Amino acid sequence: MFAEILITGQEIIAGDIVDSNSAQVAQMLTEVGLKVTRHHCVGDDIKSLIGVIKEISMRADFAVVTGGLGPTQDDITAEAAARSAGMDLILDKSALMSIEAYFKARKRSISDSNKKQAMLPAGAECLDNPIGTAPGFYLKIEACSFFFLPGVPFEMRAMLSDAVIPKIRDIMGSREQVNLTKTISIFGQAEAEIGEKLSGLSRQFPEVYVGIRAKFPEIYAKLYCHGKDRVRLEQRIEKASGWVLKQIGDNAFSSSGKSMEAVIGKLLARKKATLAVAESCTGGLISHWLTNIPGSSDFFLFAGVTYSNNAKMDVIGVSSEILNQYGAVHEETAKQMATGVKRVSGATYGLSTSGIAGPSGGTEDKPVGTVCIGLATPYAVKGFRFFFPFNRRSRNKKIFAMTALDLLRKDLLSESVV
Amino acid sequence: MFAEILITGQEIIAGDIVDSNSAQVAQMLTEVGLKVTRHHCVGDDIKSLIGVIKEISMRADFAVVTGGLGPTQDDITAEAAARSAGMDLILDKSALMSIEAYFKARKRSISDSNKKQAMLPAGAECLDNPIGTAPGFYLKIEACSFFFLPGVPFEMRAMLSDAVIPKIRDIMGSREQVNLTKTISIFGQAEAEIGEKLSGLSRQFPEVYVGIRAKFPEIYAKLYCHGKDRVRLEQRIEKASGWVLKQIGDNAFSSSGKSMEAVIGKLLARKKATLAVAESCTGGLISHWLTNIPGSSDFFLFAGVTYSNNAKMDVIGVSSEILNQYGAVHEETAKQMATGVKRVSGATYGLSTSGIAGPSGGTEDKPVGTVCIGLATPYAVKGFRFFFPFNRRSRNKKIFAMTALDLLRKDLLSESVV
Repeated sequence: MFAEILITGQEIIAGDIVDSNSAQVAQMLTEVGLKVTRHHCVGDDIKSLIGVIKEISMRADFAVVTGGLGPTQDDITAEAAARSAGMDLILDKSALMSIEAYFKARKRSISDSNKKQAMLPAGAECLDNPIGTAPGFYLKIEACSFFFLPGVPFEMRAMLSDAVIPKIRDIMGSREQVNLTKTISIFGQAEAEIGEKLSGLSRQFPEVYVGIRAKFPEIYAKLYCHGKDRVRLEQRIEKASGWVLKQIGDNAFSSSGKSMEAVIGKLLARKKATLAVAESCTGGLISHWLTNIPGSSDFFLFAGVTYSNNAKMDVIGVSSEILNQYGAVHEETAKQMATGVKRVSGATYGLSTSGIAGPSGGTEDKPVGTVCIGLATPYAVKGFRFFFPFNRRSRNKKIFAMTALDLLRKDLLSESVV
Repeated sequence: MFAEILITGQEIIAGDIVDSNSAQVAQMLTEVGLKVTRHHCVGDDIKSLIGVIKEISMRADFAVVTGGLGPTQDDITAEAAARSAGMDLILDKSALMSIEAYFKARKRSISDSNKKQAMLPAGAECLDNPIGTAPGFYLKIEACSFFFLPGVPFEMRAMLSDAVIPKIRDIMGSREQVNLTKTISIFGQAEAEIGEKLSGLSRQFPEVYVGIRAKFPEIYAKLYCHGKDRVRLEQRIEKASGWVLKQIGDNAFSSSGKSMEAVIGKLLARKKATLAVAESCTGGLISHWLTNIPGSSDFFLFAGVTYSNNAKMDVIGVSSEILNQYGAVHEETAKQMATGVKRVSGATYGLSTSGIAGPSGGTEDKPVGTVCIGLATPYAVKGFRFFFPFNRRSRNKKIFAMTALDLLRKDLLSESVV
């Protein structure tokens, strides 16, 4: 069965913000066994909105529409839905109760513009929004089941999993298909190279489809298969995944969708080891990534973002001789930073970065894109130097941080083997 | 004149990744004076791809298509374009030269699958890609000028500004319209409240349209106007922006699209002041934001991400008495952290966060969502406590970090007044 997604909003059509809702919706619809065939986006123009809703209603079995349910005057989705279905807008009591409950729980008073959010098309079924002011609604237009949801991503997501997906499962009944996916995350290999290494997959595993996608600085090989027989499909995708991991080698850091930092956290926890980081050019990004993991306080002790040379000396004890002799960006300095932050914090591992993220600060010897990384383990202290030709500050920060974490990961893995 | 955008890719239609290209393209097309009316996304299915390309060719004056020009077998956009135009794919010499130049500059050898990227529809005009392997192309189908670009965002962006926009300007000639936009960035006020405050705008400024959009934790009031007379429109949008700023008050932190951290950087630079940060619950996010600004080393000296109590004591000198008496999450602890990091680094300002980002670690007294913030200025040391009911780690980190920066901003502004 087919599904389409419609995102509405002037800010999205004009490109002022990036839409993340369609990805979220598509993922959940795919998981439940629907084939998502198109995404659409239109602005706050009622005629185009009605046009696209009618177009979708002729083609898809299911549709999710997000945005335009808010309290302001540019929120026109309920009206567009009503007119597409040939219905009037009427005050929906359960929608009004849902909005009143939201404000009551927060001890805030309800405004007239919020009350407007309770006007739904006749025949619609209100979908409760426990964490925001805008209720959603379900409405059948032609043969297509439409779900209208607010555009605020976390409200939309909660309603999608709590209300929409269960209702879709009900409607689909026994026609439900199994869709399996598996993501292998790779760092340190070019897309074309990965594509060539995996080009034999479809011959060996005819039911498994592979998509390769770069999301800087990572590359994902995503395996898909679908059909009726879950057990057999699970075996096939497992085998295909094993084959892919073999082809890629140790540049594959996860086959379960885990982030690099989550992999690091797991490896450290397994060793009951702790980590401290001294960041110069990465400016706190490594620390930010690591602390995104719930429970990271179990293994992550401290990060010093030592942007100034004084901070490098005073806080983590880099010697002025080393700084004078080699400068801030050097393997020896990075080694002292890693050792210093390990000592200061009492961590098992110390990791450091010092480099030139740009746009200024580069020299002929050390152009923008140069990074030195230090890694102090219980067994050794190592220094590394890399050059990346991206020439953009944000990309440089990311690839520097990722390279540092990847060096730590490979070290943790090699020790595990020993 | 109307433009549409088509994003292709199995990973996007299935929701495995978030598409940021359509926002980027839409923004640049809007700036050049086109009205973007629809975005589309389809997967790697040649029939749907041809269907949508033909549909767009009947309706739009311009179209930008991204993705599917890579070296792997699921890259089928060039073929779909050729078939939509009723043409064959032929080897394009300048495309081949562009690919060869890319590999030569990087001292890498060219593979057969990369050579496939030089097969373009007959009649297409190659668009050079200086920073990636996939060249793009221009092709007129029906009355619509299509630009086919690679999906890798930074390659796409470079080609868009270097090749596509100049060509669109040429084609548009004298029909070019002026589109002006102005963004007022707001922190600390609810969307509905802002909507009500600004509801009188269209009466006072009938040519100016306002869109309000939440991008957690910020809210943007975006002003748009378009027409022929640039000077008059600039005056109108300036006046409207002044009116909006008056309505919103000091929760508006920028009217030029600047980020909170860029505003902080500018205020510090104006005072020739420096900043150091002690982060506990925000885990390096404040530091990461601040160091995203080129030249941040001028004002940003040091951040200590003191996740453990030992790090709080050893590195930035929080006293064990304070920690014992009040615990890690308390105004008094936050004040000592701010004072300590200011002292250790020699900065003019010290800013600190200590809170409970969750999901675990909350108590009845200090539930998840509680944050204490310390601010040490040259004149005073202040402690604050807030509670945010979001109950999600990533949101808590963001709103904690933003609240801390906003307190610093307001302090810097009030001092400026004195």
